[in-house]
Formats: sequence, C-alpha cells, structure tokens
Amino acid sequence: MKHETPTLEEIVASIRPLESGWLEDARRRTAQLIMPPRALGRLHDIAERICAIQQSLEPDIGTKAVIVMAADHGIAAEGVSAYPQSVTAEMIKAFVTGGAGINVLAGLVNADVLVVDIGIISELDPVALNAGDRLRVHKAGPGTASIARGPAMSADQAERCLRTGYVVASELIRRGVRLLGTGDMGIGNTTASAAVGAVITGANLDSMVGRGTGIDDRRLAHKTEMIRKAIAVNRPDAADGLDVLAKVGGFEIGGIAGCILAAAAHRVPLVVDGFISTAAALVARTLCPAALDYMFAGHRSEEPGHSIMLDFLGMAPILDLGMRLGEGTGGALAMVVMEGAVRVFNQMLTFEQAGVSQA
Amino acid sequence: MKHETPTLEEIVASIRPLESGWLEDARRRTAQLIMPPRALGRLHDIAERICAIQQSLEPDIGTKAVIVMAADHGIAAEGVSAYPQSVTAEMIKAFVTGGAGINVLAGLVNADVLVVDIGIISELDPVALNAGDRLRVHKAGPGTASIARGPAMSADQAERCLRTGYVVASELIRRGVRLLGTGDMGIGNTTASAAVGAVITGANLDSMVGRGTGIDDRRLAHKTEMIRKAIAVNRPDAADGLDVLAKVGGFEIGGIAGCILAAAAHRVPLVVDGFISTAAALVARTLCPAALDYMFAGHRSEEPGHSIMLDFLGMAPILDLGMRLGEGTGGALAMVVMEGAVRVFNQMLTFEQAGVSQA
Repeated sequence: MKHETPTLEEIVASIRPLESGWLEDARRRTAQLIMPPRALGRLHDIAERICAIQQSLEPDIGTKAVIVMAADHGIAAEGVSAYPQSVTAEMIKAFVTGGAGINVLAGLVNADVLVVDIGIISELDPVALNAGDRLRVHKAGPGTASIARGPAMSADQAERCLRTGYVVASELIRRGVRLLGTGDMGIGNTTASAAVGAVITGANLDSMVGRGTGIDDRRLAHKTEMIRKAIAVNRPDAADGLDVLAKVGGFEIGGIAGCILAAAAHRVPLVVDGFISTAAALVARTLCPAALDYMFAGHRSEEPGHSIMLDFLGMAPILDLGMRLGEGTGGALAMVVMEGAVRVFNQMLTFEQAGVSQA
Repeated sequence: MKHETPTLEEIVASIRPLESGWLEDARRRTAQLIMPPRALGRLHDIAERICAIQQSLEPDIGTKAVIVMAADHGIAAEGVSAYPQSVTAEMIKAFVTGGAGINVLAGLVNADVLVVDIGIISELDPVALNAGDRLRVHKAGPGTASIARGPAMSADQAERCLRTGYVVASELIRRGVRLLGTGDMGIGNTTASAAVGAVITGANLDSMVGRGTGIDDRRLAHKTEMIRKAIAVNRPDAADGLDVLAKVGGFEIGGIAGCILAAAAHRVPLVVDGFISTAAALVARTLCPAALDYMFAGHRSEEPGHSIMLDFLGMAPILDLGMRLGEGTGGALAMVVMEGAVRVFNQMLTFEQAGVSQA
C-alpha cells in the first residue's frame, strides 16, 4: 500500500479550508426561495456548507455509503464492557448479512454499508461469509494491547490505521459516493474513545466516561479507573493525535480519522456518528483542523462525554434522539436530514419563479 | 355534511386512551433486537407508541399524507406580519403546483400533500388551478374577524372547522393513509396561535409571542399588544378549547384540531408541525386529552412560545433544527425519523436469529 497511497503528510497537505465565497453564493440562493428568510433554519446551513464543500450551487449527495470500522480492544479483558469480546465478530457477520441497526437505517437512505476489519481478534473470511464487497480485511493487528498496561499500538500501526481509512474512503469516493458516513464496532471502544476524548479535550475524566453498552455503577467506576491508569501509564501528548491514538486509542478510531481526512482531501461531505467517531474527529483535528470543515456531526450520543467532544469541536449535532448504538446508525439517520436540506436548496422555487410577494 | 359526519360529541366519545398492554408487548420485542438495551433511544419509544396506536406488533406507516390547512386572519390588517395577506393564496398555488418547502420535504418521505382552503380571503378554483385532488375548498368564512376587536369567528364556525378537519383526515385514512402530518398556511396565524397558546397554557404573553415570518422589535411589541387586547376583549374560557378557538383562534387551527381528533378516533398516528399545529393540539386537548396519545410532535419551532406549548403537553419534539416555516415542513421531515423507527422495529434481527451473544 505504501507505494500507492500518499503519506500522512501528503494527505494533510492536500486539505484546504472551505472558501467563504461559495458559502456566500449559496446563501444568496437560499434568500431567493419562497419562504421567510432562512425559515428552515439549520437545513440551510447544512445545504450551504455542502455547496462550499462541493464547490457547486447544485449540491449532490445522491450516492451514499457508511464505512463501519471494526476492531477489538485489549482493555476489554479488564472487564470494562457488559458484553463478551466475541460479540465484535458476531456483529460483523450481522452487518454483512443485513439485519443489524446500521443495515436498517442505512437502507432508509439507500446508503451502502462497507465493513472494514481493521483489527478484530477473530479471523473472518469474506468469501466464506459470502460478503461480496461488503467486508474488507485490513488488519492493523489482532486487537490492541490493553491501554491500562502500555500503548494500544505502535506509532507505525497508528499511521497505518489512518492510511487504511484514507484508502478505503478514497476508493468509495472514486466509485461515485457523494456523502460518507462513519461507524464503529468494537467491544471496549467507548473506553478507548473516552481516553482519547479526555486527553485531547482536557475534560475531567469522570464527565467523559459513560456506561457504553450499559454497565452498572461498579463497572463504571472500574472503567474510569482503567482509563485513569491508561493515561498515567502512557502519558499521551494531547497536541499530537497520532500519539494519543497509538497510546490510548483503537484501530477503528484511527481508521475513522483516516476517512475524515479522505473526505476533506476529496471535497466530499462526511457525517460522523457518535462517541467513537467523534473521538476520531478529535484525532483528525490535531492533524489537520481544516478537515473538520468537511465533517458534520450526525447526532448527540447518550454517552455523556460526547457532548463535551462536540462542544470542543464547536459542532451542533443534527439529531438528538438519545441514541447510543454506534455502528454508524446516528450518522445514517442524519443523512436523511441532509438529503432534505439539499433537496430544499435544489428544488424549492424562487419568489420570482412562483410569483409570490416578498416582505 | 351534518348528516354524514358524527357530531363533535360523538367524535370525542369514540376516542380511547392507548392500552399499556400493547406498549409492553412492543417493548418486549425491542428487547430481543441485536443491540444493547434500547440503544436507539427515542426510536424505540416512537415505534412502540405506533404499535400501541395501531394495536399491532407489525407497525405500518408506509402510506403518508400531510394536510395543510390554509386560512386568513382579520388581525393581519392590524400590521402584525411582515408579509401582505395576498401571500396566503399565492402560497397555496405554490403548494398545488409543487416547489414549496412542504412539497420538497413531503417528497422526501413520499407523503402526499393535500391543501384545504378552510377560509382564505381569495376564491381559488381547484379546477382552474388544475389542482386535481391536491386542493379542497371547505371555507368556514372569508378569513376570520380581527381578534383585537371581537371574536375571530362564531361558535358554529369553530365547530364547523373541527368537523371539516375530522372529515378530511378521515377520508384520507379511509383511502389507506397510515401516517398523517398537519401543516398550516395563513398570514397572521402566529398571532392567533400565540393567543390560543397564552390562554390555554396560562403562560406569560411576552414569552409566548415571537417574530413569526420575521418582524422587527417595534412590530413585535405591537403584535403582543394586539394579542393582549384580543384576550381582554374576548375573555376566552381556557378550559374550553372551542371557546378559545372561536374567540382568539383561526380557521386552520380548528381544522388541524379536527385532524388530531380524527387520527385518534381511527387509531392512526399523526405528527404535528410547529407553532400553529401545536396550538391546535392545545385546543384538541381541552376537548379530549386522550387524543394526544395518538399525536407526535414533529419538531421544536424557532418560535419561542412553541417550547412552552410542548412543555405544557409534556411532549418532546423529534427534531430541533431551528425551523419556523410552517406548512407542515417540520412534521414531514420528522416522518423520516418515524419511518426509521418503524423499520428498526420491523426489520432488525433478534439475538436468536443472528446468533449474537447477549450481555
């Protein structure tokens, strides 16, 4: 892969901030549509940002895909989750067969679902699973090491995860995808994400750690203690997302951060899901703040630390429905709102076209 | 119409509260789906309530329609709006042609749009407009009288509006509609709705009155003063929605209240839009509190009084996107979330089906 794909430095160097001229042009069109000024609120903001991303006043997000990055976490062995680690692979099988939450909600918006095994413990064979092109295996390793005892992965592995995400997302974009969503699967990954979130945002650890799949008070205290230990043992550099990722992160967090960079590099809007994807956005931001111009926050997760992350990024989520499943479900559902926003921009008549009196 | 349709008393008598048994059965199914308990948050609450409404564990909201009630308001002549009153009829033409906000967002969910002229000033001819069955004329009058000087309408007219809404919605349900949305069009109707809201919720008037289509501070103060006068002149009985409707309401508010009663009577879920539709819900609630069991709040309007109304009803809106257009747009967009909720309930695999380990 090294020869075919740009280096991380090259990827970052290719990303440009949005140009305000496109935003202004798009706002001028919105002002002509038959309604009181900006009466559809955030739908206009969404559509106009997509215009600026695509450098077009005919925004197009017709072809959609959700990338689900799946990985395992050494920390899961320390009893931080309500579910056994085998569930990671079992859920991947469900994603590939169809019938999981992400399949249903991606189906609602006609988004394809692509699962990437970026480092689960089990060995899944896409051919044996009859997965077609719905599962790709790009393992950075057989699960991370326990962050409570040392780094999750090496610096090389961290960079590899980012580049894997970049390559997978870039391929989908090359095949015509115009709106990307990110999702995650990995027992233990709210633990790694809370660690990443606490380090990069600097927030109090207790406010960042939540119940994940639904642990009790005792286990929540243990989870918090494990993360405190992980940060103390590893001493990640908050300003260096790659270091944070390697020391207390997870493979899927790196993969999603790579997707975010790819979307920005190719000027494609991307919507992140909840806690895990937003932890990845924090990593991406330390590498390239401009990449966030291309990203939308799909929903506010029930996981309490998610709101802290969103505030840190200065982003308001599109939906707030108490969801906390992951898999990309919140981002997929937000895609229907984004689709509505774009249709309003493209399809509503102007005052002149409709012969309606203005204020 | 009198002979064909039930009286208001008969309508109200036909409405039953939801049965908790259906909710419990639906919750048991949700608990079997492959995810941590209730991990899709409010999507589960929505789907389960639809189960209880339809008395089925295979909820179906496939066929959707939005009813847009349009009327004019005598109070508009007192300078409470940024737009001339002629806009009401101009916008109806746009709804019928397609290309207004509601057409675009209803299109997103494949919902039909039916416009009812329940009392605009102009005379629109559905045949001349080539409106097909997209426009129906059931005028309760040529706009209401100015509420600042006396009642908006007679008690007879108020009851007629409710029954018109009931009949129109019942017809759609008879033709197979499984999810109804309500919307409104009428220059001046945030003034009437704020009056209804202030009277029924008992909230402070200043907190209930907003900028509607976008008026300035001076006009906002004037609008508030006009409503204060309307309440003082008319002395509506807060416990009697029909009296509030007649004295300070509007024809479309009555029509929408009738739709809410019809949905409840026929056990069909209905999603209200924003400020005007929720004022109608307040009216419906005084007539039949159980009717609200069948109603969903589509979104939180930017109009400040809307949150007060929702709190009074004890309802959380599905979306919160700073929208304030009316027409049914917020309800139509919320329909996509409801569709997602129902698909999750119907289509997700159970732990047993998928062979996934439970916690």
